[in-house]
Amino acid sequence: MNILEIIEKKTKGKELSKEEIEYFVEGYTNGEVADYQAAALIMAIFIKGMSDQETTDLTLAMANSGDILDLSVLGGIIVDKHSTGGVGDKVSLVLLPIISSLGVKVAKMSGRGLGFTGGTIDKLEAIPGYRTGITEEEFIKNVQEVGISIISQTKNLAPADKKIYELRDTISCVESIPLIASSIMSKKIASGAQKIMLEVTYGNGAFMKNIEDAKKLAEQMVRIGELANRETKYILTNMNEPLGYSIGNSLEIIETAQFLKGEVLAEDLKHVVLELGANMLKLAGLGDNIEENKSKMMENIKNGKAYQKFLQMVERQGGDISYIEDVEKFGKTKYMEDMVSPIDGTIKEIPAITIAKYVCSLGAGRIKKDDVIDMQVGIVLHKKVGDTVKKGEKIFTVYSNKPIEMPTNAVVF
Amino acid sequence: MNILEIIEKKTKGKELSKEEIEYFVEGYTNGEVADYQAAALIMAIFIKGMSDQETTDLTLAMANSGDILDLSVLGGIIVDKHSTGGVGDKVSLVLLPIISSLGVKVAKMSGRGLGFTGGTIDKLEAIPGYRTGITEEEFIKNVQEVGISIISQTKNLAPADKKIYELRDTISCVESIPLIASSIMSKKIASGAQKIMLEVTYGNGAFMKNIEDAKKLAEQMVRIGELANRETKYILTNMNEPLGYSIGNSLEIIETAQFLKGEVLAEDLKHVVLELGANMLKLAGLGDNIEENKSKMMENIKNGKAYQKFLQMVERQGGDISYIEDVEKFGKTKYMEDMVSPIDGTIKEIPAITIAKYVCSLGAGRIKKDDVIDMQVGIVLHKKVGDTVKKGEKIFTVYSNKPIEMPTNAVVF
Repeated sequence: MNILEIIEKKTKGKELSKEEIEYFVEGYTNGEVADYQAAALIMAIFIKGMSDQETTDLTLAMANSGDILDLSVLGGIIVDKHSTGGVGDKVSLVLLPIISSLGVKVAKMSGRGLGFTGGTIDKLEAIPGYRTGITEEEFIKNVQEVGISIISQTKNLAPADKKIYELRDTISCVESIPLIASSIMSKKIASGAQKIMLEVTYGNGAFMKNIEDAKKLAEQMVRIGELANRETKYILTNMNEPLGYSIGNSLEIIETAQFLKGEVLAEDLKHVVLELGANMLKLAGLGDNIEENKSKMMENIKNGKAYQKFLQMVERQGGDISYIEDVEKFGKTKYMEDMVSPIDGTIKEIPAITIAKYVCSLGAGRIKKDDVIDMQVGIVLHKKVGDTVKKGEKIFTVYSNKPIEMPTNAVVF
Repeated sequence: MNILEIIEKKTKGKELSKEEIEYFVEGYTNGEVADYQAAALIMAIFIKGMSDQETTDLTLAMANSGDILDLSVLGGIIVDKHSTGGVGDKVSLVLLPIISSLGVKVAKMSGRGLGFTGGTIDKLEAIPGYRTGITEEEFIKNVQEVGISIISQTKNLAPADKKIYELRDTISCVESIPLIASSIMSKKIASGAQKIMLEVTYGNGAFMKNIEDAKKLAEQMVRIGELANRETKYILTNMNEPLGYSIGNSLEIIETAQFLKGEVLAEDLKHVVLELGANMLKLAGLGDNIEENKSKMMENIKNGKAYQKFLQMVERQGGDISYIEDVEKFGKTKYMEDMVSPIDGTIKEIPAITIAKYVCSLGAGRIKKDDVIDMQVGIVLHKKVGDTVKKGEKIFTVYSNKPIEMPTNAVVF
């Protein structure tokens, strides 16, 4: 076996064997296969596609290229969730304390944001003191004692995926369903998931621009899950407008606290959280009836158990919970400005991508990997798509530490 | 314009513009485009193909990536020839003195061999004293005064082609007609050709395994020639058995001398030489009638003018012409062994590829770039495909400086 034969086989559109895929993944990880050879093979895969079996073999080979997190010590069924990303996406922050309060063990490793995508870890770090970089031992101990821990990736998880992912970015091979699916699933498997709950987003603020492609991607991942013996479910989420009301790191922590306290529950965010959570409870063996599961989740918001779980988690990770209890402590930005409606009308669009890029330009995201984030800045929406507004009524507020230039085209009537 | 957009366009099978192709070629030559990006684009081209216009734009961009040899000082029409290669291929050595003796200016830069392919320059260096590495000024002066000079490449000709050619080899993207065609034509244009005569070989000893592919490649190059304003003609040559009688460096010089003296004219070699030469005379404006041109060529062999031209060239380049006049001076190898026929029968095949690999293993070729060649070793055929033989009759003789292991499967009855 050699890489030239493997590349040639794929250029002819033939199916690669498990051994050939492992040969490539191992060789590329350890440097025996050169970048340009990997680029050629990835391009051939991009154009010629892969079968479900090939996609699964690639997923497992990438998962096995580094450490596999062993969460068996926690007992029970380990259910992980993954979202293909959105704007204003604080779903993990809201959802995981709720299901933890209902008995699901939550041992979650999350990522940081790059470009105009936000990252759960960045948002948690808006809470003064919250330590996202604890050891694996402390992580496991926190889950055992508190039932939940959300931290930054500790181990060398799926390094082959990291290398291939970065390469794809530099050779215009990003938008390939088998490559996206295997990338996501390899990381879930490496981080110890036994069952996987997916949220696949579509729309202008998502990776997949339309629902058909989102469904294809979701079903591809379900088929990988089947072949890899990891039960996988999905929901599809519209990401044409930002999710919930807030976009920006501490602003999203504030919305999370308000949601878990039962004070402010944006309909779209609530829908996604309940759908995902109810399915995760089912996957974890804690209730087969989806509607009942949703009710239990709402119940634990009303009775304060979900909020208490969030406080417990934050406190255990070293976070200052007085900020959660009194969100005013996050402070005000130097500049604030309202976008008011120029007309009486109905809001047709608040393009997620426009909002995301604007919020990133305020300093809420990183352009380069080591940029420092401004935790305070962002946007709070007062209206969502479909809402009617009167002339002069506030649509959203911009929070910035630089003089504000209001975003154009952020609202379409 | 950036390389990601160019790659993406080609993955969708769209036609690249002249500017996009130039951007890639210049960027890759100067290192701004990375190897893995070039690999991805080349793979996309390999799978999706290129139009005639794209192939021509690639050809010209590669030709312009380095120096362009200016032969205008020679006057007249500069006709170059190119062969896609064969086994025992001494065509340039035989052909060029003949057409030079008929008034065609021959300013030829040739290459060395690698692997089991022979190189004209290596063969010339079998003649003691022949200097293949003279300056460009001396080269031009030789052509002006003697009418012919054959030397090794002096200038930095088509460096982009060199880089892309080497890359293709490492990513299984060799067998692509537009990529092969643009590679050949870029070098011809960079070396100053105004008109181009091609010999495209096919068969087991050639790059193209069948006549259909050879024709496709030839016609692709003709279309490039048209679009690039370089009139281009071709012939197709069967390369299932070695060309002529000898394979090996000094053995091929001996056959060249014997041919030009009119002593030994292998039919297949004679056919190729006359076809190419008659067409080159026509391209050079020295005679429109192909059959008449062939007669003139044969005439100049018979009257000794072609042979005298060869001697003049060799002498002017510093070569010892006593070796040409008395080929016995090339000496004998330490070992010689005849392959004799085990039966009465007819020879069905003498596979060129088998002979080529065997002769290379004797030391006539390089495995690596800086290997030293044994000029003396090789094979001389006494029979060709289609000849009848009697049991015990000699089919070929092996010349070697190592103990001889006779090649198996070198003759099929």
